[in-house]
Amino acid sequence: MIMDRLIDNIFNMQNPSALGLDTRIEYFPEDFASQYDLNTLDGAAEGIIEFNKRIIDATHDIVPCVKVQVAYYEMYGLPGMAAFYQTIAYAKKMGMMVIADVKRNDIGSTAAAYSSAYIGKTSLKSAKTRAYEADFATVNPYLGTDGIKPFTKDCKDYDKGIFVMVKTSNPSGVEFQNLSVGDCTLFERVGDYVSDWGKELVGDYGYSSVGAVVGATYPEEGAMLRKRMNTVFFLLPGYGAQGANASDLAGNFDEKGIGAIVNASRSLQCAWKKMPDETGFAMATRKAALLMKDDICGALNANGKGEWK
Amino acid sequence: MIMDRLIDNIFNMQNPSALGLDTRIEYFPEDFASQYDLNTLDGAAEGIIEFNKRIIDATHDIVPCVKVQVAYYEMYGLPGMAAFYQTIAYAKKMGMMVIADVKRNDIGSTAAAYSSAYIGKTSLKSAKTRAYEADFATVNPYLGTDGIKPFTKDCKDYDKGIFVMVKTSNPSGVEFQNLSVGDCTLFERVGDYVSDWGKELVGDYGYSSVGAVVGATYPEEGAMLRKRMNTVFFLLPGYGAQGANASDLAGNFDEKGIGAIVNASRSLQCAWKKMPDETGFAMATRKAALLMKDDICGALNANGKGEWK
Repeated sequence: MIMDRLIDNIFNMQNPSALGLDTRIEYFPEDFASQYDLNTLDGAAEGIIEFNKRIIDATHDIVPCVKVQVAYYEMYGLPGMAAFYQTIAYAKKMGMMVIADVKRNDIGSTAAAYSSAYIGKTSLKSAKTRAYEADFATVNPYLGTDGIKPFTKDCKDYDKGIFVMVKTSNPSGVEFQNLSVGDCTLFERVGDYVSDWGKELVGDYGYSSVGAVVGATYPEEGAMLRKRMNTVFFLLPGYGAQGANASDLAGNFDEKGIGAIVNASRSLQCAWKKMPDETGFAMATRKAALLMKDDICGALNANGKGEWK
Repeated sequence: MIMDRLIDNIFNMQNPSALGLDTRIEYFPEDFASQYDLNTLDGAAEGIIEFNKRIIDATHDIVPCVKVQVAYYEMYGLPGMAAFYQTIAYAKKMGMMVIADVKRNDIGSTAAAYSSAYIGKTSLKSAKTRAYEADFATVNPYLGTDGIKPFTKDCKDYDKGIFVMVKTSNPSGVEFQNLSVGDCTLFERVGDYVSDWGKELVGDYGYSSVGAVVGATYPEEGAMLRKRMNTVFFLLPGYGAQGANASDLAGNFDEKGIGAIVNASRSLQCAWKKMPDETGFAMATRKAALLMKDDICGALNANGKGEWK
């Protein structure tokens, strides 16, 4: 099962974190930027591919997973989507697992099309092919079970995974997610459905292929959800640029120190801005990724959540 | 304001409906399909572009708007996204308004990237450009206000519009949307936010640039929302293949017969299957679109909602 492989990779690298590739041209250092025609979508996409490849080269031995946020590729049009494709392909080639952070959602027939694109296969006349080969996709739960089923079917058929948004990291997430829906909040109710959606896909470590997005910026809710959703692996955004620190995160992990992976994007991709002495932006990202790993592993050890090195 | 232009177009054509281009290769008639290599993504995309162009040619004088569901283009990979781009561009060129049905959603900074892609502009080094030029995008409300603000800002800056999912047409939509959150259901609460998000963008007809997706399959809820959200224009999916009929829809319109546009996709795109005597699939779509217009206008007249011809 895919969540077992993710957890194995986390243990092998002793690093429960993911590197977010939310690349925009504003993140390029001046000397790098000057090599591309950044007043065209083609030039921007060319730069983004090279920027991402260098970061993948510099981190693939220390970070188990990349999360590629498709919004930053869609905004650069068709060349941007080609950069999205090539980034995923290169990360896979270099042995990293890939989360396509696409937050897709729609009614069943349309959800099936989205799922085909990212974790399943697209039916052609007498063949099937992959559009983008991610390991995981993120999805939005607002449409309920029949909008999720096509994704869980592909999780089963192709040994892939999804992360369903439960409790998001942004301030306004509370407006709907924290409403009381009787005996619990909406996000807890969504969490219960997520547990249920994955119940036939639980792997050897006890976590299913149907994970949850839980914002690291809400540590108390995260700790509560960890207990409530004990077969659901968490993707935790919000560390770094969004303000969550390592001690906020520990409650999202179980007693063995598993059950979650922490994402950081801007703080790693733009590490070069704070590390002028590093030889190039990619080495700055590597250094920042190692500091992040030490920070998180230290907090887990301090909270008795596993023995991380 | 854009919603005024949409309503003007609806009045000019006497047709409050949108044509959904959810094109997949399975929708091609055999003689059309045989012209393309449908075992490759490139061949599939080539066929999709031509299929859509012929439908646009056959309907642009009778249907004010197309809704292009991006899932069916994403599933065909990069060639599929090129087909999405070309379909939007061709529909605009032929004078149709375009709803990019993308259901995007994320935290503020990422929502801004999505909005740039579909209704705003992408910042390059010293220029701004459009990635895909739609008039409207659909969005998902689960992240609350700060995930919507970047879209409403672009609505204001570029005179564009959005439709926020409030009550979806699928059976499982009720699982979360119909939960009681105190004095109302979640979808009503979301509806109240949608009204508020658009309050500075109300046009001459009294409807704002921030519309709502309301499933035609729930006529009672639609009629209730029409009263509750009196400045919000509705996009109504669910007519045709999903089972809603014209009399179900009337309650979503106001007393003047405005306030909503009805979408149909499969039932129009695949009309050729039920009309073997028509000269080509595109003319079958035109005929089905005219029947749909008559059906809806008849139901509106029967319910005293305007005087439609």
